[in-house]
Amino acid sequence: STKRSLLLLPGDGIGPEVMRQVRRVIDWYARKRGIEFQVEEGLVGGCSYDAHGTPLTDETMARALAVDAVLLAAVGGPKWDNLGFDKRPEAGLLRLRKEMELFANLRPAKVFDALVDASTLKPDVVRGLDIMIVRELTGGIYFGEPRGISDLPNGERRGINTQVYDTHEIHRVARVAFELARKRSNKVCSSEKGNVMESGLLWRQEVIALHKAEYQDVELSHMLADAAAMQLVRNPKQFDVIVTDNLFGDILSDEASMLTGSIGMLPSASLGATDADGKRKALYEPVHGSAPDIAGRDLANPIAMFLSFAMALRWSFDLQAEADILEQAVENVLSTGLRTGDIMQPGMARVSTSVMADSILREM
Amino acid sequence: STKRSLLLLPGDGIGPEVMRQVRRVIDWYARKRGIEFQVEEGLVGGCSYDAHGTPLTDETMARALAVDAVLLAAVGGPKWDNLGFDKRPEAGLLRLRKEMELFANLRPAKVFDALVDASTLKPDVVRGLDIMIVRELTGGIYFGEPRGISDLPNGERRGINTQVYDTHEIHRVARVAFELARKRSNKVCSSEKGNVMESGLLWRQEVIALHKAEYQDVELSHMLADAAAMQLVRNPKQFDVIVTDNLFGDILSDEASMLTGSIGMLPSASLGATDADGKRKALYEPVHGSAPDIAGRDLANPIAMFLSFAMALRWSFDLQAEADILEQAVENVLSTGLRTGDIMQPGMARVSTSVMADSILREM
Ligand SMILES: CC(C)[C@H](C(=O)O)[C@@H](O)C(=O)O
Ligand SMILES: CC(C)[C@H](C(=O)O)[C@@H](O)C(=O)O
Repeated sequence: STKRSLLLLPGDGIGPEVMRQVRRVIDWYARKRGIEFQVEEGLVGGCSYDAHGTPLTDETMARALAVDAVLLAAVGGPKWDNLGFDKRPEAGLLRLRKEMELFANLRPAKVFDALVDASTLKPDVVRGLDIMIVRELTGGIYFGEPRGISDLPNGERRGINTQVYDTHEIHRVARVAFELARKRSNKVCSSEKGNVMESGLLWRQEVIALHKAEYQDVELSHMLADAAAMQLVRNPKQFDVIVTDNLFGDILSDEASMLTGSIGMLPSASLGATDADGKRKALYEPVHGSAPDIAGRDLANPIAMFLSFAMALRWSFDLQAEADILEQAVENVLSTGLRTGDIMQPGMARVSTSVMADSILREM
Repeated sequence: STKRSLLLLPGDGIGPEVMRQVRRVIDWYARKRGIEFQVEEGLVGGCSYDAHGTPLTDETMARALAVDAVLLAAVGGPKWDNLGFDKRPEAGLLRLRKEMELFANLRPAKVFDALVDASTLKPDVVRGLDIMIVRELTGGIYFGEPRGISDLPNGERRGINTQVYDTHEIHRVARVAFELARKRSNKVCSSEKGNVMESGLLWRQEVIALHKAEYQDVELSHMLADAAAMQLVRNPKQFDVIVTDNLFGDILSDEASMLTGSIGMLPSASLGATDADGKRKALYEPVHGSAPDIAGRDLANPIAMFLSFAMALRWSFDLQAEADILEQAVENVLSTGLRTGDIMQPGMARVSTSVMADSILREM
């Protein structure tokens, strides 16, 4: 049997308890479907800082580069809030993205029929919502130089960050968006602030050029990032695939995920380039954070972590039918009325992390 | 009688027709209340480009610097979309902000009781919503150098923008936020991405320093900009005053304005420093844009423009009771059921721009 390799990075807060449940799902595939994974575990974030003085060791970084796919749960917590920039839990995540060259972050904002009422938006506005945000993840203001805080002669301080995008960085992420759109409703909306930022104007021009050269069959539109923030609230169903830069993608995808009312349900994939062997580096993680307030109490929703593994089955291992099994089991369990606290609704049955996981496994 | 001077800049699209209505309001104050304004008009945006080849002439810029307050309606339209960076309608607006040093942009997101149902959010989530976003307006990535698009030796192009903030730029806008909060619910939430941007970290540190030195009576919290984009959808009523930088302010204030379901109602004020004579430069404008699709058809909602003038009465002329008259007239007319198309609801009476203005004037 082919050996498929996975690195699990549980991280902080509720990370370890949702990762524990996904291990059971991984075992299920070996036991019931003969699909085996070679699984290793490592530290990232605050727990790595506590153990090694750094949010990601070189050794773990090397293992992340060697495996077929990384599953990460969540990093961060108030305990590490006052560390310096390079020691913070987030720095471990940013290093993984950068060194694995995960330039395309796919963040679906999907409303589950059973959870329409969990949204703060009116049911008509969000029922059936299914947006895919493709966020550039290794460039822009997150990584541009010069950057830093310096002392000025007048006694003040100055903070600087730099947004930089080159042609190929824009093309490769736009390509992912166009390819995805072809498998969905065939529409891409590209978002920037090209009316005030030259880097945004270049973004728009390069997306237009690529579209013209290779993707004329896909419907392309452009929307300023402020207008997109409005339209996500006004009429989110107008969107299919949105492609945008690292910073706007951070904000717009969080806004979009909250439209669903259940970010405890949403997975994400971060993908690199496809190499000569047809392989691409990839990291899968829930959209939600480490939720330190409920950590260790068996209260967290494990579904986003499960669906992140389903994305791994699809994107890293081309196991489409196997991914369907897991996703369908999640939908079925939701329709029986089981809910973790974050998606609890009147008349439903409130269950723990482990009971939710038990039920999904039984359903599989 | 004191002469109060106003420069009206109708701009493009629906700008001229809403400005025409506000002139009637200005006349009303002279006729009925003996409050006279010396009114001049000028061009900004696409109309200025058509007439003079630039979106703002030096002469109009000089007049804007000389008057007590500027009222601007809206700029832009598809006709000018393909002009170079410095010729575009937006460039006129950015020049006004920069040369008048309007560093604090006040954008209220307020839900009118009569219009609760116009929101795409559930009534319970937005009823009574009253947020004030204070956006830094003359710094950050909108104006930082270096910037531009350049050709690279490898045949690609590179787009660059720079985010820069100095201590005093952060302090002066945070001061406006703290002062405002004292007159409201006494809470300020400062928003940045200090977890990935040093300029955001400096922002947070400087807001904390100013709070400690001068505003300990105000409740201060901090929220990452992505989390703020989420919380505005999840639970917007948790906010009172939000203070943030130019770019995040652009996006978050647009998102917040759309929560109200009626951006045709929302005014804004952009304020400079108070000088030795107690005067401050100021520009007032609706949050909505130039809406070229309905321009010239007497369909636009004039209320945001009226309420922008009410903000001018308050902030530039200290005429609080006079501002109350105008604001109250707007609320009264809404409660009689008159609606322009943008805020139309079942069972209400749809009226034109001029009929809406007539009714508000009659009510005054
Ligand atoms: C944790 C943080 C560095 C990160 C980001 O800003 O990219 C997070 O908000 C995300 O969206 O994955
Ligand atoms: C027109 C544009 C330059 C402007 C901005 O980005 O600041 C607008 O979106 C605003 O919010 O006033």
